[in-house]
Amino acid sequence: MLWDILNIIGIPAFAISGAIVALEEKYDLFGLYVLGFVTAFGGGVIRNVLIGIPVTDLWKQGNLMLAALIAMSIVALFPYVWGNRWRKWILFFDAVGLSSFAIQGALFAHKIGHPLYVVIVATVLTGIGGGVIRDLLAGRKPAILREEIYAIWCIMIGVCVGSGWIASEIGLYTLLVTIVILRMLSVHYHWNLSIYRKYPSV
Amino acid sequence: MLWDILNIIGIPAFAISGAIVALEEKYDLFGLYVLGFVTAFGGGVIRNVLIGIPVTDLWKQGNLMLAALIAMSIVALFPYVWGNRWRKWILFFDAVGLSSFAIQGALFAHKIGHPLYVVIVATVLTGIGGGVIRDLLAGRKPAILREEIYAIWCIMIGVCVGSGWIASEIGLYTLLVTIVILRMLSVHYHWNLSIYRKYPSV
Amino acid sequence: MLWDILNIIGIPAFAISGAIVALEEKYDLFGLYVLGFVTAFGGGVIRNVLIGIPVTDLWKQGNLMLAALIAMSIVALFPYVWGNRWRKWILFFDAVGLSSFAIQGALFAHKIGHPLYVVIVATVLTGIGGGVIRDLLAGRKPAILREEIYAIWCIMIGVCVGSGWIASEIGLYTLLVTIVILRMLSVHYHWNLSIYRKYPSV
Repeated sequence: MLWDILNIIGIPAFAISGAIVALEEKYDLFGLYVLGFVTAFGGGVIRNVLIGIPVTDLWKQGNLMLAALIAMSIVALFPYVWGNRWRKWILFFDAVGLSSFAIQGALFAHKIGHPLYVVIVATVLTGIGGGVIRDLLAGRKPAILREEIYAIWCIMIGVCVGSGWIASEIGLYTLLVTIVILRMLSVHYHWNLSIYRKYPSV
Repeated sequence: MLWDILNIIGIPAFAISGAIVALEEKYDLFGLYVLGFVTAFGGGVIRNVLIGIPVTDLWKQGNLMLAALIAMSIVALFPYVWGNRWRKWILFFDAVGLSSFAIQGALFAHKIGHPLYVVIVATVLTGIGGGVIRDLLAGRKPAILREEIYAIWCIMIGVCVGSGWIASEIGLYTLLVTIVILRMLSVHYHWNLSIYRKYPSV
Repeated sequence: MLWDILNIIGIPAFAISGAIVALEEKYDLFGLYVLGFVTAFGGGVIRNVLIGIPVTDLWKQGNLMLAALIAMSIVALFPYVWGNRWRKWILFFDAVGLSSFAIQGALFAHKIGHPLYVVIVATVLTGIGGGVIRDLLAGRKPAILREEIYAIWCIMIGVCVGSGWIASEIGLYTLLVTIVILRMLSVHYHWNLSIYRKYPSV
């Protein structure tokens, strides 16, 4: 139930973020749908491959695919309204999606009995997969590797879940809300980890 | 038998298209073979992962690998003849490969009993995989997401196969020939879905 | 024992090479760790997928992950010392990692009874995976496809192992040392396969 709700918010949000990146790159209608779809489900495919869940479970998510397709169609039909006004909402949904995927990855890795630092790695990899693939397909350097301070919140999820400190459903909900708020604050106040800006170019 | 014939045409064609892209990017001899190989077999690997076929089936395709290696070696030995004169033949073989992969993906997804829109998604993803990986490895934005009207024909394959409307071998052959012809026509007449060209750049 | 030693040298070396590329691209602290981790383990994941080993074996490599994390942390703490003085050491460790992965891939493919050219393909694909993913995530064209003469040594590994000519542990060690030396020499003397530099640009 928990993940159903998270997914029904997160998946369309990821799909919309992919569709908007396709618009920005002037991709065609096909590219819009592919990029949205890959962003929404690519992270899940990578997570399933990495933690040993059958990838074909993807195809059981018919309802989520429908939700993603509807969300992308709205972007396709009204491409010019996705300006600054909507951007904060996108960031919000994106944060929900990222956090939900990260928590899922952390839970899976923790359940199999991995030590803490392995859980943290699994948390990060499963959280950022979709966005990284989206940026690669758009011909961009992955934004999350350059300028977004998502790392700290991902690691926080990994620590809280991987140490067994947070395990109850209400605790995970609280963690999710906290991470989403911290993520929104870090975007708003431009918190970042870009400590290597002065590194000499090659 | 059907897929054997399709593969023996499609795989070397994909390999040649990858090898030519490597030439255009001034990659070295190694890059030529890697790009050709990845284009020819990358789509199949993605398809197998996504629809649950063992990826190691790849290594049973010794004959196809030999065919791909021979095709790439011809490009490597005679790099300067692959100009405009040959381009149409490449497009033709590429269309055969793409259509064959898309039909295979559609058949697999349909057999497992997925609803129509899932079949369509599987059709598209399995059809375009190799070409997208090729373009990423060449440092290009995937052409198929930007300017090629392959989408409509992919979706048409998904609809025809996923609805159960076309199931006989003769029907699938006819579908393949039709899609290849439509694909060639759409390249010749520059049909496209680029409806977002005026979207503001970021 | 053999592979334990190779991995404990190769994995941190790959991690360091990824972390340095992240520095050069001015990625943030998060990007540094992600790129290092992906370079170190991405090749192994691709190899496991391609030759049918459970990908989740990745998570049993806790010690190697710790080694990679320590190596990356050293780069993160002292980012400005990784100039030309260290570059040769990086190349050396990178060569050890690449050769070790290539030999592993060749052994696996040979054991399953594949013909020689399939072993060669498996050797190459498993050897270069991590570096190619690293370059893609850094927004670069994969260096190994353009200017590095790693191909010949990879193929040599494939031939020696795939033909059954080298099978003993001492033989494999000798092969590894030989390939590492040849690799260092080819970098030092700028041997390359770039025979298509005059190909017309598109």
